[in-house]
Amino acid sequence: MADSPLNPEFVLLVDCPDRAGLVHAITGVLFRAGANVISNHEFVDAETQRFFMRTGCRGSLDAPSVTSAIEALLPKGSLVQVRRVVPRRIVVLVSKEHHCVADILIRHAYGELGAELLAVVSNHDNLRPLADKFSVPFHSVPSDGLSRERHEELIQSLVEPLKPDYLVLAKYMRILSPAFVSRWPNRIVNIHHSFLPAFVGAKPYHQAFHRGVKVIGATAHFVSDQLDEGPIIMQQVIPMDHSYTPHDLARAGRDIERTVLSHTLKLLNEDRVFLCATRTIIFD
Amino acid sequence: MADSPLNPEFVLLVDCPDRAGLVHAITGVLFRAGANVISNHEFVDAETQRFFMRTGCRGSLDAPSVTSAIEALLPKGSLVQVRRVVPRRIVVLVSKEHHCVADILIRHAYGELGAELLAVVSNHDNLRPLADKFSVPFHSVPSDGLSRERHEELIQSLVEPLKPDYLVLAKYMRILSPAFVSRWPNRIVNIHHSFLPAFVGAKPYHQAFHRGVKVIGATAHFVSDQLDEGPIIMQQVIPMDHSYTPHDLARAGRDIERTVLSHTLKLLNEDRVFLCATRTIIFD
Amino acid sequence: MADSPLNPEFVLLVDCPDRAGLVHAITGVLFRAGANVISNHEFVDAETQRFFMRTGCRGSLDAPSVTSAIEALLPKGSLVQVRRVVPRRIVVLVSKEHHCVADILIRHAYGELGAELLAVVSNHDNLRPLADKFSVPFHSVPSDGLSRERHEELIQSLVEPLKPDYLVLAKYMRILSPAFVSRWPNRIVNIHHSFLPAFVGAKPYHQAFHRGVKVIGATAHFVSDQLDEGPIIMQQVIPMDHSYTPHDLARAGRDIERTVLSHTLKLLNEDRVFLCATRTIIFD
Amino acid sequence: MADSPLNPEFVLLVDCPDRAGLVHAITGVLFRAGANVISNHEFVDAETQRFFMRTGCRGSLDAPSVTSAIEALLPKGSLVQVRRVVPRRIVVLVSKEHHCVADILIRHAYGELGAELLAVVSNHDNLRPLADKFSVPFHSVPSDGLSRERHEELIQSLVEPLKPDYLVLAKYMRILSPAFVSRWPNRIVNIHHSFLPAFVGAKPYHQAFHRGVKVIGATAHFVSDQLDEGPIIMQQVIPMDHSYTPHDLARAGRDIERTVLSHTLKLLNEDRVFLCATRTIIFD
Repeated sequence: MADSPLNPEFVLLVDCPDRAGLVHAITGVLFRAGANVISNHEFVDAETQRFFMRTGCRGSLDAPSVTSAIEALLPKGSLVQVRRVVPRRIVVLVSKEHHCVADILIRHAYGELGAELLAVVSNHDNLRPLADKFSVPFHSVPSDGLSRERHEELIQSLVEPLKPDYLVLAKYMRILSPAFVSRWPNRIVNIHHSFLPAFVGAKPYHQAFHRGVKVIGATAHFVSDQLDEGPIIMQQVIPMDHSYTPHDLARAGRDIERTVLSHTLKLLNEDRVFLCATRTIIFD
Repeated sequence: MADSPLNPEFVLLVDCPDRAGLVHAITGVLFRAGANVISNHEFVDAETQRFFMRTGCRGSLDAPSVTSAIEALLPKGSLVQVRRVVPRRIVVLVSKEHHCVADILIRHAYGELGAELLAVVSNHDNLRPLADKFSVPFHSVPSDGLSRERHEELIQSLVEPLKPDYLVLAKYMRILSPAFVSRWPNRIVNIHHSFLPAFVGAKPYHQAFHRGVKVIGATAHFVSDQLDEGPIIMQQVIPMDHSYTPHDLARAGRDIERTVLSHTLKLLNEDRVFLCATRTIIFD
Repeated sequence: MADSPLNPEFVLLVDCPDRAGLVHAITGVLFRAGANVISNHEFVDAETQRFFMRTGCRGSLDAPSVTSAIEALLPKGSLVQVRRVVPRRIVVLVSKEHHCVADILIRHAYGELGAELLAVVSNHDNLRPLADKFSVPFHSVPSDGLSRERHEELIQSLVEPLKPDYLVLAKYMRILSPAFVSRWPNRIVNIHHSFLPAFVGAKPYHQAFHRGVKVIGATAHFVSDQLDEGPIIMQQVIPMDHSYTPHDLARAGRDIERTVLSHTLKLLNEDRVFLCATRTIIFD
Repeated sequence: MADSPLNPEFVLLVDCPDRAGLVHAITGVLFRAGANVISNHEFVDAETQRFFMRTGCRGSLDAPSVTSAIEALLPKGSLVQVRRVVPRRIVVLVSKEHHCVADILIRHAYGELGAELLAVVSNHDNLRPLADKFSVPFHSVPSDGLSRERHEELIQSLVEPLKPDYLVLAKYMRILSPAFVSRWPNRIVNIHHSFLPAFVGAKPYHQAFHRGVKVIGATAHFVSDQLDEGPIIMQQVIPMDHSYTPHDLARAGRDIERTVLSHTLKLLNEDRVFLCATRTIIFD
């Protein structure tokens, strides 16, 4: 997961039906536009016959005209983006657990997150002092006595004006309604504390203990309107043994949860994640 | 997973309700019997409040009298075994895939399996030449035109006279009936090609592909009368990416299937596996 | 790496020449003293013929009398400790890099470190604001214009009155003199950014890049008077590929450095680490 | 490490100085030649400023004319190959240990090796029955009483007429002379039983034991005239603990040795390995 030492100034992202000659045609546009290609990934998905490409470039491109020139080569239904590389804007949603958001705050404070952290939003208040330490705005939206719709409306009204690229659920323990999710299509990322599809739903570490698994894991995935069913971006596991209680599993799992989530944010920030049916293509 | 350089001549296995002073009492019997303890593992399961102990000894023990002396210390319902360390006797059941049984045959041929391989039994005939190369008896029991009961009766009549300690399902692709399983309680071991409980049932690599997981795994477990629900002995996973088709997943998975299965056989052969409710205690 | 849900109130640590009957004799003392044993690990090192034991207990023990009673059973040169479980006291030494100390500060702030963090000491000043956020004393001791002896004297005079159990080098980039190390025998722990013994000394990520390794790692070890030669406590590695520059290797490595260091602190805090010649015995 | 379900019929391999427009120019030749590109990897090495490309194609190419057309685009000193995908020819050299060659024989027998196994050559005779089982020619060339030069001459005279692409040292325990190595530049592959550069030379598992490492590994590398210094192709490690004797380390290590070696053969057979100074570029 590394670009060349020169970071790209632009990335080109293409997602289109496959046909012969695509790489030649697309790189021709880049070449004529004076782009200096510094990294290039392509993949054709056999099942959907779609072509995916991510190209990192340097040079003084005119992004809209390059985009148009490439679109002109491709059939309708193709997605083409030429993006100047600027930090993605994120809002982090949390409940009471600190470990994922603490990791994000530290990385953000030291310029290692890649993204711009706009705010932390929680249904509780206990993590406010942590966000305050790092001078990141913290908003608590208690859910007590509110319908789910009303609670989500409050969150939406807080978050929308911030114009985030992604909402990051960093151990946000409430289930978002399909209505809310549909406002942020493929723009909500969750960290789930199991190697999905094992242990969907609540208390996965308790489920893992009772099933007696010898590995536990964490999964970062896009949120869809099916609980824990969205496309998986990254997963990692660690070995377990019989001596771990559910409490021990949770403690050990926290380290991989934060690692998986922060790697996932890096992938998203660098535009390395493509959606392909129920799966993701990761160019790392 | 290593005894000291001196291998034990006996292993003591205890599974009993926990109470204070057990280690002291049990090791007292061993000490007075002249046993030289070379390794010792104990564990108390918090949920069931049962005590588990595995002790490797050397010396000229009288196993029955040591067993009786320890049993006399413990409440009814305690399990005590003092076993002279001799190779476990196993029968391997396969279908058409060669990779797990080939690994077992090679290890057996070079004295690395720990177990005595009595026979290979298959519902097909294609692996006969492989078993023949290593002079291991091969029995094919085709299932065509037979009821499941009849087919299992034929297998049972082949296997029973061999007096195996364990039946090892090394990619045996038929589901065994509860009736058959009940004849071999906790003595049938299966290698399942997913990280259970993900992808129970048929074609786990196809399921894994469509779910878009980023790790695949293999699970060795005892066979119970619930499909793929028996206690897990060992699991291992490897990372995946979007470029793997179901065919590629299957190919990559074969390496961990055979590794997990052969480690599991080593654990069983050395009496390192205890059952505890739906879980296993592994002293390695 | 998990005690039973009931944490021990005492741990017994034994390191002595092996002989028959040790477990029986030692557990007898504990039993008669009314200790409730909740976990027990033993190991005999084949090379040195020494016996190691760690026992976690609950109950109202008289630690000195239990210690004496066990010492009375063992030959001269045996080490016996019965310790009430209280947090270890640590001082962290850093240079300019934040990632390890940030992890320690976060864990400390949320009661997950196990240890009491007395102070952060650095030869630079840039991490002061980070320590301040968490209200942990920060002392900078610049080395400019000072001899190594003088610099170390200043550190020693700062650290000694704090009476730490361990000095933790969390990316402290200066080499400590044998004279300094000898004042803290087996009480200084370092995190080295390679899988030792590969890439001893400076700039291990640059060394790793030029050697073209396909894994990189981190090693926590006791500091001895030989550079990077002290007994290894924990190591972890992650896979690499050709696309990683030395800069990328360093970034990726930071995640395992902090993970390895914090696990190591957990092991030390729980008295799970024994020294055995140039090696460590880890009861986890 | 997976091509698309359609395996390529040709692979194009390019290794040349980097300049703008290379991908566009090269894919233009392929497009005009009617090649259907099914996978494509490119990399620019920042240190050497060389461009590497591997393209898998289908279609009825005229390989020599495509090669010439691409060469015509590139500066002198560029390497261009268009190879029809046919199995690589290998000869395996062994000493007394069976595990790596057994794995290769099994994979070869079941069509999973990718390569054509021409012969097994050993300085001992004990593995002859194993090769015989799989009807692979076995040649023993004892070294007793021979100078190294004479012994290597005998091996060379056996191997050369077989016209292998690669010599595979599958636990061949003699050091090859620079003179011998120079006859097979970058065509000899060795499996070393440590995570190089740790534990160069003899008895790495004993070295690992005495250093007290907590991981052990295996390294596949090209053989150069510096012992254990050739470019690394693949490495893998597994965790260890204090209970492993050198004997146990060797046993545990065998599993990763054979895994690493067989993956390396897959990489080589599919032309996924490029040399770049002292490093390798792996397109998997």
